[in-house]
Formats: sequence, structure tokens, C-alpha cells
Amino acid sequence: MADTFVVIGGDAAGMSAASKAKRENPDLKVIVLEKGEWVSYAACGMPYYVKGEVGSLNDLVTITAEEFRDERDVDLRTGHEVVDIDPEVETITVDSGGETYEQPYDDLLVATGASAIEPPFDGVGLEGVFTIHDMDEADAIEEYVTDRDLETAAIVGGGYVGIEMAEALSAHGITVHLYEMLPHVLQPFGETVAEVVEAHLREQDVELHLETAVSGFEGAERVDGVRLDDEVVPADIAIVGVGVAPNVELAETAGIDLGPTGAVATDEYGRTNYENVYAAGDCAEARNVVTGEPDHVPLALTANRAGRAIGETVTGSPTPIGDIAGTAIVKAFELGAARTGIVDEEQAREAGFDPVSVTISAQTRAHYYPDGAELTVTLLADRETGALLGGSVVGREGAKRIDTVATALHASMNVTELQNADLAYAPPFSPVWDPILTAAKVLGGKLER
Amino acid sequence: MADTFVVIGGDAAGMSAASKAKRENPDLKVIVLEKGEWVSYAACGMPYYVKGEVGSLNDLVTITAEEFRDERDVDLRTGHEVVDIDPEVETITVDSGGETYEQPYDDLLVATGASAIEPPFDGVGLEGVFTIHDMDEADAIEEYVTDRDLETAAIVGGGYVGIEMAEALSAHGITVHLYEMLPHVLQPFGETVAEVVEAHLREQDVELHLETAVSGFEGAERVDGVRLDDEVVPADIAIVGVGVAPNVELAETAGIDLGPTGAVATDEYGRTNYENVYAAGDCAEARNVVTGEPDHVPLALTANRAGRAIGETVTGSPTPIGDIAGTAIVKAFELGAARTGIVDEEQAREAGFDPVSVTISAQTRAHYYPDGAELTVTLLADRETGALLGGSVVGREGAKRIDTVATALHASMNVTELQNADLAYAPPFSPVWDPILTAAKVLGGKLER
Repeated sequence: MADTFVVIGGDAAGMSAASKAKRENPDLKVIVLEKGEWVSYAACGMPYYVKGEVGSLNDLVTITAEEFRDERDVDLRTGHEVVDIDPEVETITVDSGGETYEQPYDDLLVATGASAIEPPFDGVGLEGVFTIHDMDEADAIEEYVTDRDLETAAIVGGGYVGIEMAEALSAHGITVHLYEMLPHVLQPFGETVAEVVEAHLREQDVELHLETAVSGFEGAERVDGVRLDDEVVPADIAIVGVGVAPNVELAETAGIDLGPTGAVATDEYGRTNYENVYAAGDCAEARNVVTGEPDHVPLALTANRAGRAIGETVTGSPTPIGDIAGTAIVKAFELGAARTGIVDEEQAREAGFDPVSVTISAQTRAHYYPDGAELTVTLLADRETGALLGGSVVGREGAKRIDTVATALHASMNVTELQNADLAYAPPFSPVWDPILTAAKVLGGKLER
Repeated sequence: MADTFVVIGGDAAGMSAASKAKRENPDLKVIVLEKGEWVSYAACGMPYYVKGEVGSLNDLVTITAEEFRDERDVDLRTGHEVVDIDPEVETITVDSGGETYEQPYDDLLVATGASAIEPPFDGVGLEGVFTIHDMDEADAIEEYVTDRDLETAAIVGGGYVGIEMAEALSAHGITVHLYEMLPHVLQPFGETVAEVVEAHLREQDVELHLETAVSGFEGAERVDGVRLDDEVVPADIAIVGVGVAPNVELAETAGIDLGPTGAVATDEYGRTNYENVYAAGDCAEARNVVTGEPDHVPLALTANRAGRAIGETVTGSPTPIGDIAGTAIVKAFELGAARTGIVDEEQAREAGFDPVSVTISAQTRAHYYPDGAELTVTLLADRETGALLGGSVVGREGAKRIDTVATALHASMNVTELQNADLAYAPPFSPVWDPILTAAKVLGGKLER
């Protein structure tokens, strides 16, 4: 009898693993259990659907359920929720909308994702209060925005989602108030990026409330205000985007170990403490290439890559899931902001480094060439070894240049090596010294002192 | 008495070295001999001046002669041509417009640059026939184009200069005929890039004549035609851009060794066969990071970097000039094309590798996000070791992604390592798998077989 590979969760990690496994071994029985109806969708595209730049939610689906079933021969069961894992007996229990059944597996992948954190605010149940945790919610927001004549919005949380939704709602002519408890937005991007983004948000008429805690929402049936410490600010719609938490209950209950970050602990092949149980995607940890420690960065590429690697491993070609650098990029209206590795000195010290950092601003094109923009680059290195630790960039163009820094981190380059990289120059594309090189040059000088 | 550092040539390498040396050791006497009047100018910007996108030739000057003299305290002598080097006596002979004098040195930098090759065509002396070898020539072209009502242009050579000048002249409403002897334009970029660029040039109404040799120019005083094998094609202006050759006569005559490429041979510090004589920039070789062999890639970053390093070395901090990857990028109308390392299989075999290559096309942004473009990526690796050898990209946006490949080459990454790099993803900037990653993934699969 053919082996059975069971996957819990039908999004990036799960479907990548299922597809890859089936492609590598067509005889393998591959079953995917997805509790919802949407599979393999680009959650990152939801703000652009709300903004009106993506015609249909279906456009966000990379591969449809039908394609998985008919073309890839994956036994994809939507509306099937896994309610229990028994790793000793190697069986899961599935609830298919009322009826439950047991499903044995030879290999199991836990790809249960993450969920938007719902803070215990008063009034989160009011109509017009949303998180942006799935496709149906994105649909509901879009409907709420287009059906009504909304004047003001409250966005709670200045992370990716908050900033992308600020752009989306502003595009509908809504006055956006953005509330962030911390002193800065985009906390993982560091202060220099945050300050550039904050100035730009204000330019775009976003009302920015930093170090401001929201305690609840007001309204009869529908939200009409957001409650702060000492006042209530009117709001016709509220979006809560205060982060995500890995969906680990199922795994934890089954005795699958969690790691220090609270996500499922995995080894370099994505294996949990059970030999034939893997975890990948937003519910799982991966190793940070700079610290060598487990990290939890719930982003799409990590999920896709780990899923794909596990699909190879379970079909007989052990394939490491790869380290992560925590690389991320976000559009904030006209700006692009990106980060990789460690960008915060405090965090670098906690990881055992003696950080030295520089921030420079440089043009993205030759100074005399039209339409260039200023790019602000921060780089961090360790004083003793000169090893590059991380960096960030922010500007109206050129944010993808973070990839140079991310690649350097994967290669354990030191600052001198990065400084000597032969990057591409021509006036329409870069100054002679690319801004990344200029930053490395200045950092190199600082390390010598 | 203070030491004397003499620099021959006042452009990228020379002025970088002079400035850096003076900054590191203000007591050093730094003399720069420049035979022309322009110093530290961006030759790469000249086509954009002709096109009309740069207001004044002075905008192309990074730092003026006055700034070098007054602010940086460099003894910059324009209009002074070095006619002889005596490395045994450590003296040069300078012609300052009729009068000659001897100038002793402690350290000497030969930064004599490169010159546009002038093919022995009939009629190259006709009015309206130009190379684009210096600022005065760029000025003359611009004047010729704006003062006259030109209908057709002949551009001889499909390299950077030819393609950039095709764009510049087309912008003036001139019908451009581009003549290339080889089967493809942009030879160092490889065939896949060339084919995309050629299709685009034709879309832009450039008349492309591949495998077509020009034998001369016709006309009474002014050029009015270009002579091919069997016909004469009308041309109101002709630009010859068939490559550059390093200016090595001065060095060669003085007994300074040339390398296998015909440029001045140097060690990792930019030293020639004379301990205290350096060479840098377009006249000198540098080591190719992929082959480990001497290479001659006369581009601005290499010159700047080597000059700067030599400025440090002569002031007591020996600093390697850095390897080159041969990274280059060029704008061809709406396209960007870039290359790094080895992109040609034949060339890879000559360097002792067993090349495997892939070419893929992928979107620069998420498939559902507006305004993305197709990027065609070629990657080469060595079959036995999996080592990355080089690559190219071409598309309407995203050509700077070549920097990821260049960085990977400097880090001696193999294809699997590149494939696992955590590059930045968000819908407005990239698909989940950046096109570079997709190419690495496909190449990785091909290497496994």
C-alpha cells in the first residue's frame, strides 16, 4: 500500500508541501485538510483588494482547489478541521462539519498558520470592527467600505497590516487615524525607518497617534468611536492589526514541542520532536541565520520554502528548510521600507554581539539623472569580527536593495567584503557607489576606529 | 620633507586616490597631472546629456577642479600631460603645454584611462562623425544634434554606448540605424538578454542591422552616408562606439608590465611590477572573482574603488582593491539589462568549468498587483561543484536585482545557498519567490539531474 502524507492546513506551507511531494512521488497518497474554503491564497494581497487595486478576491488565489484536486491529484478536503493528533498511533481526528473520522498518516505536516491577535477590547464585536485575518474578512471590509460613506477610520497597530490598511482606506477618501502603543510604527524595522515612514504618513494626511493605547470601541450596533485613555475619537470603521500568534493549540495538545518563541519547534528539516511529524509556515519556528537561534517570522516565502523542502524530504530526498534572515519589505503609500537580520542595537547585544551601526542617505540614481530618490540605509555589524548583522532601507524607490544585504547575511559576509561587492552601476539605476556600498564603506570606517 | 604621491590622470581612479590619500595623510604632497581640462566627470552620463535629460555638462562633474584644489588641497594640474615615466629614477616628465619639466615621486599611480577605439574607416574625419570619448565630444554631438535638422543617424556598434546613444538620438526624433558586426548586440550580456533588447529596439523603431560590417562613411565635408558591403545608407550623423582600449603606451614604454588582457597588470593592492608604481581604473586589470584570473572591465565603480584603496595603501594602510565580478547594467529605452560573472557557456568552459544554465521569465511583482513587468533571468553554475558562475537579467523593471547575484558570486555561494536566501517579498515589490530565487530553484533542479 502506498504511503500517506497528511497535511493540516491548505495555505502556503501546506499546499507547497503537498504539491512538491506529489510531484516527486506520484504514488504517494497526499491528503490536505483545510478547515476553511480558501486554499493557497495570498493573504498579503488583501489590503490591495480593499484598496481597490485587485479586481477580485479570486485573483489572490495562486492555485485553485480544483487545480490541486484535478491537475495535481492532491486529496484536498476543504471544510475539514483537524481536532486531534495522536502522534503515538499516527492518526489524526477530523471534523468534516459535524461528522468526525480518524485518518492515519505515515508523515504529517502541521501547517496550521497564525491568527490575528484579538485584544480584549470592549466593543470588538461591534459591526464595523475588523481584524484582517482571512479572505472572508477582507471581503467584508471591502463591502463595508464601498457600501457606506465612511468619513473616519481607526486603525489599531502600526505594523505591516496597519500601514497597508491606512493606505487602502485613504484611497477611499477616508480620514485615517493610526494608533500605535509603542513610540514608533514598524517596530521590527528600527527607528530610522520608522521616522521616515512616520513623516511620510503625516504627509499623506494620516493622523498618527504614537504611544497611544486604545482601550475599546464605542457604538450601539455599529462602531462609531474608539476609546483612548481620556477621550473618544469618532470612527466609522476600525481595523485591529496588533500582530499574529501561531496556531499551536492542536500541536501543543498532542505533545508536540513548542520552541522559545511559542511557535512549534523544528529542526533543520522542519521536523518536530516526532520523527515523522513536521511543522512549517506561520505556526513554526525556523533558524535565524544571524543568531543561529530559533526564530518566528511568519512570512510567505519562509512558509513556501519550508513546505517545498518538506515535500522533498518526505519523498526521500532530505532537504533542509533553509535559514531565515527575517527579511521583510512593506509599502507605505509612496515609500518602500525593508529590513533584514538584526537592525536593533539592543537586540544585537542580547544576541551576544557588540553592535556598531551607521545610517546614511544617498540617491538611488546618479545625482544628475532624473527621478532619483533618497534612500536611507542603516547597517549593523559586530565590532569584534566585523560580521554584518543586518540592515534596513527606506525610500521612494530602491527598497528591494535590501536583498543585497540579506544575501550577504546568508553568506556570513563581513563589512569589508560587502563594501567590495561589485554591484551594478549606470546613471539611470544607481550612483557609482550603490547606497548599500556607501553605507558599508562608512560602517567599515567606523569599525576601524 | 613630506612624501610625494603623483597621480597621472584626473578622473575616477586618479581623483579617488588623490582625495583619499590627502584625507588619510594631510601632510602628503599629492600632485595630479591631467592632460585635459575636465576632472572627475561621469563619462557614463554623456548619452543622457545628448538626450537632453541633463541640463549642463557641468552637472556631470562630481567634484570640480576648484574643489579639489581649494577644499581638498590636491595639487591638481590640468593641461599637464605626462610624456614619460622613469621608474628607476622615480621621476616623470610632464608637458605643460609646450614646456616640459621633471617631477619626482615617492609613489606613483597610473590612471590614464581608456580611449574609444577608432576603426580605420574611410571618412572618420568627416564632420558629423563622432566617437563619444570625452566631454568635449559629447558637447559637440549635442550641438550637432540640436543645431541641425537631422533625419537619420548611423550608430556603429551595439554595446553600451551604441544603445544609449540610440536612445539619446531617437529622443530628438532622429531615425536611428544601429550596425553591429556580431550576431547580437550587448555581447557581454549573453544571447538571452540580447534577444529581449533587440526586440525592444525594433519596437522603438530603431533599424537594427546585425552581422553587418560598416566599412566607411561617405560625404563631402559632412557625413551623409554610411558604407556597407554592398550599399550606402543615408546618415546625417554617425556615432562610432566599437569599444575602448586601455591607455597603456606610457606605462608600457616605461617598462611597466601589461597583463594577458593588454591592460596594466596589477596585484591585489593595485601594484604594478614596480613596488611604488600603482595602476587603477580603465587602464588596469583587476582580478575576476569567479575565475580568479586577471580581467579588464573598464567601469566606474572598479576605478573608484581601486583608486580609493590605493589612496589608503600609499598612506600606510595596505588595502586590497577588491575583486571584480564584471557586473554591468544598461538602460535600453524602457528596458534595463544587467549581467555579472560569466554568462556565456563557452566562456565558462574556457575558464575550466562545466556550465549548466537556465533562463526563466517571471513577474517582478505579485501576479495580481498592478504595473509589474516580466523579468528574464539567466543563471549559470558549474555542474560538479554547484558553484554559481554568473547571471543576467532583463526587463522593464528590476534589473538591479543582478546585485543579489553579484553578491552571491563574491561570497562564492552555490546554487542551493542562493535558492535559500531570504529575499524580500511583499506584493508591490516581488512575487513570493523573487525571480532570482525562481531561477536558482530551476537551476538547482537541473543540477540534481
